[in-house]
Amino acid sequence: MPQGIKTLVVVGVGLIGGSFALSLKRAGLVERVVGVGRSLENLERALELGVVDAISQDAGAACRGADMVLLATPVGQMEKVLLAMAPELSPGTLVTDAGSTKSDVVRLFERCLPQHLAWCVPAHPIAGAELSGAAAARYGLYENRDVIITPLAASDPHSVGQVSALWRACGARIHHLTPQGHDEVFASVSHLPHLLAFAYVDMVAGKDNAASCFDLAATGFRDFTRIAGSSPEMWRDVALANREALLNELTAYRAELDAMVQEIEAADGTALAERFARARSARHQWYQAFLKKS
Amino acid sequence: MPQGIKTLVVVGVGLIGGSFALSLKRAGLVERVVGVGRSLENLERALELGVVDAISQDAGAACRGADMVLLATPVGQMEKVLLAMAPELSPGTLVTDAGSTKSDVVRLFERCLPQHLAWCVPAHPIAGAELSGAAAARYGLYENRDVIITPLAASDPHSVGQVSALWRACGARIHHLTPQGHDEVFASVSHLPHLLAFAYVDMVAGKDNAASCFDLAATGFRDFTRIAGSSPEMWRDVALANREALLNELTAYRAELDAMVQEIEAADGTALAERFARARSARHQWYQAFLKKS
Repeated sequence: MPQGIKTLVVVGVGLIGGSFALSLKRAGLVERVVGVGRSLENLERALELGVVDAISQDAGAACRGADMVLLATPVGQMEKVLLAMAPELSPGTLVTDAGSTKSDVVRLFERCLPQHLAWCVPAHPIAGAELSGAAAARYGLYENRDVIITPLAASDPHSVGQVSALWRACGARIHHLTPQGHDEVFASVSHLPHLLAFAYVDMVAGKDNAASCFDLAATGFRDFTRIAGSSPEMWRDVALANREALLNELTAYRAELDAMVQEIEAADGTALAERFARARSARHQWYQAFLKKS
Repeated sequence: MPQGIKTLVVVGVGLIGGSFALSLKRAGLVERVVGVGRSLENLERALELGVVDAISQDAGAACRGADMVLLATPVGQMEKVLLAMAPELSPGTLVTDAGSTKSDVVRLFERCLPQHLAWCVPAHPIAGAELSGAAAARYGLYENRDVIITPLAASDPHSVGQVSALWRACGARIHHLTPQGHDEVFASVSHLPHLLAFAYVDMVAGKDNAASCFDLAATGFRDFTRIAGSSPEMWRDVALANREALLNELTAYRAELDAMVQEIEAADGTALAERFARARSARHQWYQAFLKKS
């Protein structure tokens, strides 16, 4: 059982931050949640819905005396928030985040909170981001979800243990990775496919026969392109924040495409069928495991 | 109301062929369906389920005296079937198919049935192929689905009208395209994404950290890669049959990727966000229209 939290500050009260607050409340592990954000309307909605117990538009003031702070804003907004928090944090206040890239967040923590690193524990909960606002928050979002914890070199093991235990209390499965290991894995399984899907839809939309194409696209197209409906701003930030790992993935993918193009040019049906069969088999194995755990 | 069919021969009694037979039976537009195939077990199952009224393993013999023949086999098996049918067809017997590429099927018709082209009408019903066998056949599969008709230069307009009317009676929306126009559109919206998904999964499966990648892949990965679970043999055939259009698509896609890579290398956030926003907007528009018609 993790140690309970008297005051939790959630900066960015949307699906991710709001659901963390609700889950900990249900588990009886938090007494009071203060919601911080830029939109007063969203904060008032969060208060009305009981997602938070108090609201503030001043991250620094809200952090005074808090036991824990969760940064659940886009990564692009974190620096400003961290700088406002820095002079107000007391030793022992846990600081964690929910950003989808980790090496850059680690650098931010190290630059903005150099005196506080023992209590900083970067993390990344894997949960859909297609809904936003306080009204999207819900109990149970993290049941059976993966949360990646990427401790700093300076993180106190006790802090890491506390943050892990709180996520576990929300129902999540905890994984520990280095920030770089995290960014490499997510460049592969999340960032690259988002960019490939954006590029694909953008290409089709630019074709002379785009109208006929869209008119006849069906369910395969629908599923393959779902992630191209994601936020352009968020994915611009991710692409830039995880640039190095993503460029490696793109290089590897282009090499794979080049090999496939050569097989098509050479009408090498055997090599193509082998490539497709390897992919189908890997996808099938993955999907069976995914169904089992979700 | 289309003219009714006394004897319909369906070569390949699976999801596509079997559902066509069932739909026409329900519409009261066919008296007797003869199922033809290589697997006696599947044919007997089709008979048992009432999908067909008689079965045969000899396409030529089955076609004698038929009013209409639907080829619902993989395109790679069509030549053999057409050559067996050729000496047995009577003038006036409609011949259509359900192949997912059309220029190659047109060439096959022209080569194998040169005396019969007035009654040949190639077509492509857009309906998932992830299920197979007679047991997958069902009434209603074609309700609100698209069927592309690609007449031959020599197709009699009356034949085209009859085949179109029968598909319409199954609930389908009819589109007329040239074989080349069909193959270009489907290279874009179906063949290319299948190949991109196969290549992507094959690349991830080959990585040193593949196990971690698969362990942490979530719903975005699931949807993006669903079509990589498709039949390697079918997609090898499609890739080779529609090679020229597909190579054009791959060239265009690689150019789009190259441009995106340059933007990432240059950390050009504005250009990336614009590209992603164009894609999201096109995808959103497409999806609204898709929901409306389906």
